[in-house]
Amino acid sequence: MTDTAAPGKPGLAVSPLAVPFPKMEPVAGVELSTSRAGFYKHERPDVVLMRFHPGTAVAGTFTRHAVGSAPVDWCKGAIQASGGRARALVVNAGCANSFTGQAGATAVERVMDAVSTELGCRRAEVLMASTGVIGVVLQYGKILNVLQDALVRLTPNGWTDSAKGIMTTDTFPKGAVAEAVIGDRTVRIVGICKGSGMIAPDMATMLSFLATDAAIAPAALQAILSPAVVRTLNSVTVDGDRSTNDTCLLFATGRAGGPEITDASAPELDAFKAALEAVLLDLGHQLVKDGEGAQKFVRVEVNGAVSEASARKIARTICESPLVKTAIAGEDANWGRIVMAVGRADEPVVREKIAIRFGDLVAARDGAVSAEYDEAAMSAYMKNAELAISVDVGAGSASAVMWTCDLTHGYISINGDYRS
Amino acid sequence: MTDTAAPGKPGLAVSPLAVPFPKMEPVAGVELSTSRAGFYKHERPDVVLMRFHPGTAVAGTFTRHAVGSAPVDWCKGAIQASGGRARALVVNAGCANSFTGQAGATAVERVMDAVSTELGCRRAEVLMASTGVIGVVLQYGKILNVLQDALVRLTPNGWTDSAKGIMTTDTFPKGAVAEAVIGDRTVRIVGICKGSGMIAPDMATMLSFLATDAAIAPAALQAILSPAVVRTLNSVTVDGDRSTNDTCLLFATGRAGGPEITDASAPELDAFKAALEAVLLDLGHQLVKDGEGAQKFVRVEVNGAVSEASARKIARTICESPLVKTAIAGEDANWGRIVMAVGRADEPVVREKIAIRFGDLVAARDGAVSAEYDEAAMSAYMKNAELAISVDVGAGSASAVMWTCDLTHGYISINGDYRS
Repeated sequence: MTDTAAPGKPGLAVSPLAVPFPKMEPVAGVELSTSRAGFYKHERPDVVLMRFHPGTAVAGTFTRHAVGSAPVDWCKGAIQASGGRARALVVNAGCANSFTGQAGATAVERVMDAVSTELGCRRAEVLMASTGVIGVVLQYGKILNVLQDALVRLTPNGWTDSAKGIMTTDTFPKGAVAEAVIGDRTVRIVGICKGSGMIAPDMATMLSFLATDAAIAPAALQAILSPAVVRTLNSVTVDGDRSTNDTCLLFATGRAGGPEITDASAPELDAFKAALEAVLLDLGHQLVKDGEGAQKFVRVEVNGAVSEASARKIARTICESPLVKTAIAGEDANWGRIVMAVGRADEPVVREKIAIRFGDLVAARDGAVSAEYDEAAMSAYMKNAELAISVDVGAGSASAVMWTCDLTHGYISINGDYRS
Repeated sequence: MTDTAAPGKPGLAVSPLAVPFPKMEPVAGVELSTSRAGFYKHERPDVVLMRFHPGTAVAGTFTRHAVGSAPVDWCKGAIQASGGRARALVVNAGCANSFTGQAGATAVERVMDAVSTELGCRRAEVLMASTGVIGVVLQYGKILNVLQDALVRLTPNGWTDSAKGIMTTDTFPKGAVAEAVIGDRTVRIVGICKGSGMIAPDMATMLSFLATDAAIAPAALQAILSPAVVRTLNSVTVDGDRSTNDTCLLFATGRAGGPEITDASAPELDAFKAALEAVLLDLGHQLVKDGEGAQKFVRVEVNGAVSEASARKIARTICESPLVKTAIAGEDANWGRIVMAVGRADEPVVREKIAIRFGDLVAARDGAVSAEYDEAAMSAYMKNAELAISVDVGAGSASAVMWTCDLTHGYISINGDYRS
């Protein structure tokens, strides 16, 4: 069993784009443990418990999906009710507890009751995230059964096991770390996530949990997290299919010391913001590199749009076009399909000014094939595992970057070659 | 060589959902011929010429793609300039003449010059449609070379050959016919189309050409065509990737006799409208059934939306979700993926009222799995080649229907398993 063995779906080959798991130092004020509650038939951890030092601040971003899950509903309400303070987080794989109505909500509350009683904290200070089958109510008794033992085994060194415990069809565990200086103190940021895997008949879900020992107040933490997520986790896409359960939580224990910072725009937070964004981007890239069937990692940059939102929509349309993604899988510099995707984004573009590059190679400029177009050089470039496509749509000066993977037979096999 | 042999991509297997080509009677006032201009290396027809009786009215709908092709630009302008009258149509396969700048526009004009001179009509009375490689300027000389011969061979019986002449990676030619009574006259409606095929490195394009001997004035014809296309050709989707060249043209020769009808809302046109919509729907269904790699034909109905536009957007999101489409390919009644797609459409839904049916089988109701849910019956249902999924989103009373196919290894092979 290697370090990148997948507990999620037995027999799934590790992605050729897999990234090694980083060395994870503890974050002061965070303890973790993993347990097997039995949401899967095979032997694997499926519950992660995190305990945070009293006074830990929390910020979160959640799926904008109209059919959010019971744990997402809970987190949104709890963060409001607690004023952005958290003492614990419970995560389970194997059951999304989504589309489960009142029974699903009650199941979450039963887990929150038990954990808050054990920790002697308010129920709203306990959060939950789930991934797995949709439409099945969480069998919360399975979590209660392992709770006492999970509490006993909490350790500051539990990050790596936790990264594995939340995997579903991920083929490698995902983590990232960074340090930043705030004033005269060095703080640590640690993050783990699980990504765009599917397991029959489960739902792909992005769960991401980050912790820092920095002392930042809840409102400021949220103000820092939200825009950073837009440029990172929300700028990666595998197939455009969004989950009911997507959750990103950032906990700040304050154990690095110093007064709690309440102003998100304070200059002393600049380095922290950059480090946080680096961790989120690293995690986002790992999600794409573990995209189902992914063989290529593709950066798509759109320039010359009328607004950042417009640039992002065009980039997303390119990233999610099946014709673009299959061309990339076929190592085909099919820039006509890029033109097609740009045009169908329904955003302002100036056809006569459109330019397209693959890496440094110019495919098109001024709305037509480029005089420099070199088929042989293009074909050679497309053999790379990591590709960069850039498009100027000639309508303005705004830009956006997104990341995606190719669409291969592997995606069809993982998602279509089975019967429920 | 069978009747359904594909001239487009040699060796492509005929779709298992292929529809027999109907018997095509002539339409009074329409003559057709097919020619080989040489846009393909292999022996196949690639140019279709249609000539219409003087006074023929024309209506058209075109791609809303922001990067429309030179022939689409031409048609839009010509129909305006001619007041909706047409004498001829030239169609070529093998070159889309899209993203070709001024050179592409000039190429179209050279063809229009030649045809209008031959027919002694205004240039704006000649229309053009193209499908094939993007970014390559039309070599119009190839069309001029065959023009004289194409004119000589015009025949009212050319519909079947024309349906074949416009194919690219279609695996069967597509046609539909209907009759309707207007007043005391029976009129005929005939249509052919080519669909969502790809041929390396070409662009999928929907071209659809219909003719009737009814006497209907241009403005009325347009007022009838546009809404009918929304409910038919614009309600089918294979992969969500829209072409730069999509074109639907309807010609009304008036040769059935009677005064030209100028009021689109005249009750005497009701039967004609229904017949036209039936032809368009038949053609649209054939496009889906020849979708790349299609093994299943799927009808998606959305009810309970706040508006028809909202219902359509939800239906489209379901139809274009890779996870839904791969589940269908896997014959998996994975209703969780339907919930996911409904929620990510970003339209108003009431989670607690959502209901989902596969055929007559209820999978979910009131926002949770249904008590009637029968896994064995569901699995048996999913084996059908034609499937119906219906969703009630519980937010209003508006509905929409769309049609799609599944996403299979065949799609990846056709679009990704080659190098340019």
